[in-house]
Amino acid sequence: MAQQHPDPTDPTAGAVTGEALAGYLRAQATAFLRALRLHRETGSTLANSSQESVDGPRALRRAARRISGSLHTFRPLLDPGWSEEMRPELAWLSGTLGLEHAYEARLERLLLALHRLSGTTVIPAQTSDRAAAPGRPAGMTRAPATTAPADSSGPTAPKSTPERGNLTVGAAKAGALLERQLTLARTRAHSTALQALGSSRFHAVADRVAVLASEVPLTPAAPTTDLGPLAAAAEERLTDAVAALPLVTAGHPYNAEALVHGLAPDLSAHPQDGPWHQVRLLLRLHRYAREVLTGDEAPADVRLVTASQALNRHRDASEAAAAAAQAARTPRITPATAYALGVLHADQRHEVEAARFAFQQAWQKQTVNAP
Amino acid sequence: MAQQHPDPTDPTAGAVTGEALAGYLRAQATAFLRALRLHRETGSTLANSSQESVDGPRALRRAARRISGSLHTFRPLLDPGWSEEMRPELAWLSGTLGLEHAYEARLERLLLALHRLSGTTVIPAQTSDRAAAPGRPAGMTRAPATTAPADSSGPTAPKSTPERGNLTVGAAKAGALLERQLTLARTRAHSTALQALGSSRFHAVADRVAVLASEVPLTPAAPTTDLGPLAAAAEERLTDAVAALPLVTAGHPYNAEALVHGLAPDLSAHPQDGPWHQVRLLLRLHRYAREVLTGDEAPADVRLVTASQALNRHRDASEAAAAAAQAARTPRITPATAYALGVLHADQRHEVEAARFAFQQAWQKQTVNAP
Repeated sequence: MAQQHPDPTDPTAGAVTGEALAGYLRAQATAFLRALRLHRETGSTLANSSQESVDGPRALRRAARRISGSLHTFRPLLDPGWSEEMRPELAWLSGTLGLEHAYEARLERLLLALHRLSGTTVIPAQTSDRAAAPGRPAGMTRAPATTAPADSSGPTAPKSTPERGNLTVGAAKAGALLERQLTLARTRAHSTALQALGSSRFHAVADRVAVLASEVPLTPAAPTTDLGPLAAAAEERLTDAVAALPLVTAGHPYNAEALVHGLAPDLSAHPQDGPWHQVRLLLRLHRYAREVLTGDEAPADVRLVTASQALNRHRDASEAAAAAAQAARTPRITPATAYALGVLHADQRHEVEAARFAFQQAWQKQTVNAP
Repeated sequence: MAQQHPDPTDPTAGAVTGEALAGYLRAQATAFLRALRLHRETGSTLANSSQESVDGPRALRRAARRISGSLHTFRPLLDPGWSEEMRPELAWLSGTLGLEHAYEARLERLLLALHRLSGTTVIPAQTSDRAAAPGRPAGMTRAPATTAPADSSGPTAPKSTPERGNLTVGAAKAGALLERQLTLARTRAHSTALQALGSSRFHAVADRVAVLASEVPLTPAAPTTDLGPLAAAAEERLTDAVAALPLVTAGHPYNAEALVHGLAPDLSAHPQDGPWHQVRLLLRLHRYAREVLTGDEAPADVRLVTASQALNRHRDASEAAAAAAQAARTPRITPATAYALGVLHADQRHEVEAARFAFQQAWQKQTVNAP
């Protein structure tokens, strides 16, 4: 771990107390309200608008996640009734607001993969964090590449999805099918999010956050309570969950583990992914707890960031693989379409495996270099 | 390289001359004739018989490959007319005799993969060199495994192919389709091989090999000519071909290179595999040349063996992937069958990538440790 900040497990360091938690929560609440104002001023919603207004809902979710995470990790220091009412509302909000972007990123990921699998290279738009290129060394594509120009309209515009001109019939049909299904899902998510933002439920959340921006409901003892033990407990939950992961397997390249259930009866169920998703959430809570203690939102430890990115990629590939498997169950598709979806599913499951390998590598480095 | 044998590139070592080549060729010719006698005595042919008689044709091919390879590498030391007539005949023979086994091993590989992809584990029979398990660390399968008992009738009996009881409909149908197509191909290969063994062309080859067993047509200067430079040239051809491989890419796990053309218009063409197949052949020639120089058929260098095995696995997975893609073009298959074949194709292409990684690892070790 980087040592420029107090180490939460070091009892000799000057203790960071509940006051810091209050400061962090106030700051996040303020960020939430700023994002809400930005969103309302630009008058647009969510992901299918210009890049600037995207930042509104994204910043809203970002702050909601941090508030919610801090409420969880530092629960004993906060008014329990308030905290228990607040958390599910914040989870509902960030879940609802995140869906549209998730469907969009999933479609982009799948269409990019179809192009890669067809030997055509599309330069992925770089601004979308979920749709980032899947972490291969740059310049390694040796295939005779028909490089499509990068679309300058931004990754969130529907028209920025790669064209299917160079695909085979099966790949093109698979792409069209996925586009239809995921665009429909995204449109529904958009409507749901719009309704959510106009709902009395949302206004109640926003009101509570507005109060939080000035007045954090700490317990009487909290202002002088050391945050260290609670932050350490969050880290321990993470460490325990990581220890339960099959990291030895994941560290062997090409272990073929992620596709073991690729043709299992329930195509979209991958129970093996669950523990990794869980670690993703615990790692996020650990990072937020570190932010509270250091008072700094800039990532303190590049390895934690790398590990987080690997787990995000794991989640994205897992969901994309499930979407391909789901699309293959559409009635009356042609065998060529189904074949392309099978290749695509397997490709994304290998992305899952690659992400686990990347996490293992990042985590190993971290453990080796820890004090 | 292991140093217990003379280093062919070391000018100070006692030179190995054409006499050693003659001895090697006589020994291989004798092995050829012994295999032929064994095959005729057991009265059975090729791969679909009991384990003992399998060794006949396999030993026949083994000797034929070594004679042919030595004729190529040490061509200047042998009567050119004889040599140029002999080589294509030996290539025809080992190609014809190898096909049946290749189809059988391919089917076994694909059915094992279908089981793995369905979350059921089948213990592969261990005696078949081409059908060996694809090199994962043992005991790593964490899936809830329905382990079928290993079939004791040997890997070459058609009934030893795994049962399809636990597969999904799509996987089962894909397996049945592949079994039908590859069994047909194998039956044809069997007939062709039987015809070949009864042909006058084969008898002419056998007669020539019988002569070779006692009388090697060396050039007049050959008995005192150092074999070193010709063996070194064979090694150099190998080294040059390896240097042209994309080993940097191959050394990055999960580079996703092997599937780049997974959905390209011509499904079964993978031009990127060609250079690797070529290296496989050159590596074999290099190994045979070492055998001639050391007078020892036992593998002198475990890393050369590891590299060879990786390239065999590369070839097998490449051909299996092509067979899955080919099967997916069968008219009137169901989408579920096509989907399973797509997953299977992608899985085998990742096996191709895994084999390249394994070769890169083996080769790197070799280069690092070479004097």
